[in-house]
Amino acid sequence: MTTDPIELTARLLSCPSVTPAEGGALALLETTLGGAGFTVHRLGFSEPGTPDVENLYARIGSTGPHLVFAGHTDVVPPGDPAAWRHDPFAGAIDGGVLYGRGAVDMKGGIGCFVAAALDHLAAHGGKPKGSISFLITGDEEGPSVNGTVKLIDWAAKRGERFDHCILGEPTNPARLGDMIKIGRRGSLSAVITVEGRQGHVAYPHLAANPIPALLAILARLTAAPLDAGTDHFDPSNLEITSVDVGNGATNVIPQKAVARLNIRFNDRHSTASLKAWIEAIVAGAAQDGISPGVAYARGNSESFLTQPGVFVDMVQATIEEVTGIRPVLSTSGGTSDARFIKNYCPVIEFGLVGQTMHAVDERVPVADLVALTAIYRRIIDRYFAV
Amino acid sequence: MTTDPIELTARLLSCPSVTPAEGGALALLETTLGGAGFTVHRLGFSEPGTPDVENLYARIGSTGPHLVFAGHTDVVPPGDPAAWRHDPFAGAIDGGVLYGRGAVDMKGGIGCFVAAALDHLAAHGGKPKGSISFLITGDEEGPSVNGTVKLIDWAAKRGERFDHCILGEPTNPARLGDMIKIGRRGSLSAVITVEGRQGHVAYPHLAANPIPALLAILARLTAAPLDAGTDHFDPSNLEITSVDVGNGATNVIPQKAVARLNIRFNDRHSTASLKAWIEAIVAGAAQDGISPGVAYARGNSESFLTQPGVFVDMVQATIEEVTGIRPVLSTSGGTSDARFIKNYCPVIEFGLVGQTMHAVDERVPVADLVALTAIYRRIIDRYFAV
Ligand SMILES: [Zn+2]
Ligand SMILES: [Zn+2]
Repeated sequence: MTTDPIELTARLLSCPSVTPAEGGALALLETTLGGAGFTVHRLGFSEPGTPDVENLYARIGSTGPHLVFAGHTDVVPPGDPAAWRHDPFAGAIDGGVLYGRGAVDMKGGIGCFVAAALDHLAAHGGKPKGSISFLITGDEEGPSVNGTVKLIDWAAKRGERFDHCILGEPTNPARLGDMIKIGRRGSLSAVITVEGRQGHVAYPHLAANPIPALLAILARLTAAPLDAGTDHFDPSNLEITSVDVGNGATNVIPQKAVARLNIRFNDRHSTASLKAWIEAIVAGAAQDGISPGVAYARGNSESFLTQPGVFVDMVQATIEEVTGIRPVLSTSGGTSDARFIKNYCPVIEFGLVGQTMHAVDERVPVADLVALTAIYRRIIDRYFAV
Repeated sequence: MTTDPIELTARLLSCPSVTPAEGGALALLETTLGGAGFTVHRLGFSEPGTPDVENLYARIGSTGPHLVFAGHTDVVPPGDPAAWRHDPFAGAIDGGVLYGRGAVDMKGGIGCFVAAALDHLAAHGGKPKGSISFLITGDEEGPSVNGTVKLIDWAAKRGERFDHCILGEPTNPARLGDMIKIGRRGSLSAVITVEGRQGHVAYPHLAANPIPALLAILARLTAAPLDAGTDHFDPSNLEITSVDVGNGATNVIPQKAVARLNIRFNDRHSTASLKAWIEAIVAGAAQDGISPGVAYARGNSESFLTQPGVFVDMVQATIEEVTGIRPVLSTSGGTSDARFIKNYCPVIEFGLVGQTMHAVDERVPVADLVALTAIYRRIIDRYFAV
């Protein structure tokens, strides 16, 4: 018995699983994996102030080595469906291309790795020489609070031990085979607030304008690059993302000024080292009538790197075999759920081509689904042939 | 016949003339001045986007010298009347103090100069040796669009020529006699906008963050003081009054950033020279993907100075005679309607003590009204004794 990754992806695309809706996508995986002998857990997590989210964990086998595939069935909203060439939730194939919201991010990746695993099992008597798992969340495009971070913690607490993880996010900039992600930069978001004393512009000595103090802090924070990059990472980068005062009166010196910034940082820094650096500069701006402070947004993350070695080499070689392209090992781009998984086992990311992700007419060539399934299948074969 | 400045002020305070409402205040002046032989004009001005405003111009005499008293009957809102010791529109006297919105800013000033003029006329056969006028607006606390600026333009177009003007705004910081204003700084409000290119913080090379460019402009504008002051003026001062981006997404580089600033400047500058200076700095911030621009708020004004001389000396000496305090000649503080009047004749400002203006329980000691009336009366006597 073989599983068709195109049909499975098309069926997943037909589930309207816009974050945080489950939309039938996890139910479809539960049926598919349960039918192939996996033990399937459906897990709902909730937390005040965030939407309830459904997740799924499925495992077959009880020994090591334990290879886990991770991903998400939730998708971003399609926008105006009328702007699409095909219904974003129909899974339509047109000219050898499969259309739908999530086609590359990342129902296509899930369709491929599930098909690859089921094919491998079918070819090996229905059991792996070790364990294969799927860690699937419905909260990657949302606040990422009730998703992977709680799901993997739940699994670890019940005794699950993972040896390696492949996250199926779309990692390739242009062609299938371009890029494996072996780490990610960290992310720190800070909110700097300076309180002064309101007054009239004609009497500045009676007021304390918080804006110059805030600008001085921002000037110091951006005076020099954070670093020049490291072996596997680009230079760290700080962006001031907003400055807000909200004073529309031309004759008023305002009470308060706020700046927001985000740092994407490499392995020369940590959230702790960056916080200490920011806080020293912020504290240095205090003066008579001027009180500066800093707070941090939720969801900051550390950088991480899965060191190249046997596992990464095997994946890289397999991709080159199937695609004819030797993928670069990269740590570029934004954050992903790999930032949660890396605390439990080495994790790499490889999936489809990301060009149409989050866009109108998100789509994937059927040929890419076939090739990615072949890559995952050979990776599984080799992983358990060791 | 004598006119009681306390009674007249109390009756003006009973008129609820919160900008732009006339509230009966101009009607009261029309009756009072008309009865004393003045030719009274009631003039309504309007302009799209601003409230219609009533104003009053009254003159007695047809030759020079022509002394004009200027002021406004409109007042700022009282806030919660329950917070007041006395009804803000009752004109209540309590312990020798007259309470009410506008008591010092500036119905009290009007009550005093009208009483002083009528007393002078009563003592001189009902006619001045020259002309006395009142230029009273109902739009000083509002946008100042349909008030003094249009009223004096109307008067000039019909052939009115003024020799000197006394504006009765509250000029004294602490005690009656402290301060005459002989000029005012200019005011220029600018809005600097930098357009960049929106993007994701993880891919800054694909975006152009407008915030650093805006901060660089602000740093250059505030790098050095504008000047060190001049003979009659304090140093010019630039305040950044707002910076706004409005981007709440921690992972987004914004499209646009806006800063607002206000300059209070002395006679070393003009709105034209300051605009040229700002525009050169703004233009210098242009770079690939970054488009800076500047616009100016309505209502900017030039600085002006009424040079000390015979008229100022006479007023200063008179105030010292009555109060025992030699008033300083100042150009400090905010703008006033004097910025419009100075284009037509020399103008100085002298009135009550400003401490309670715009505050709850705005009030004036009855003794101050008596003393200010005596000052205005002696000024008129001397002006026409020349
Ligand atoms: Zn994704
Ligand atoms: Zn006033």
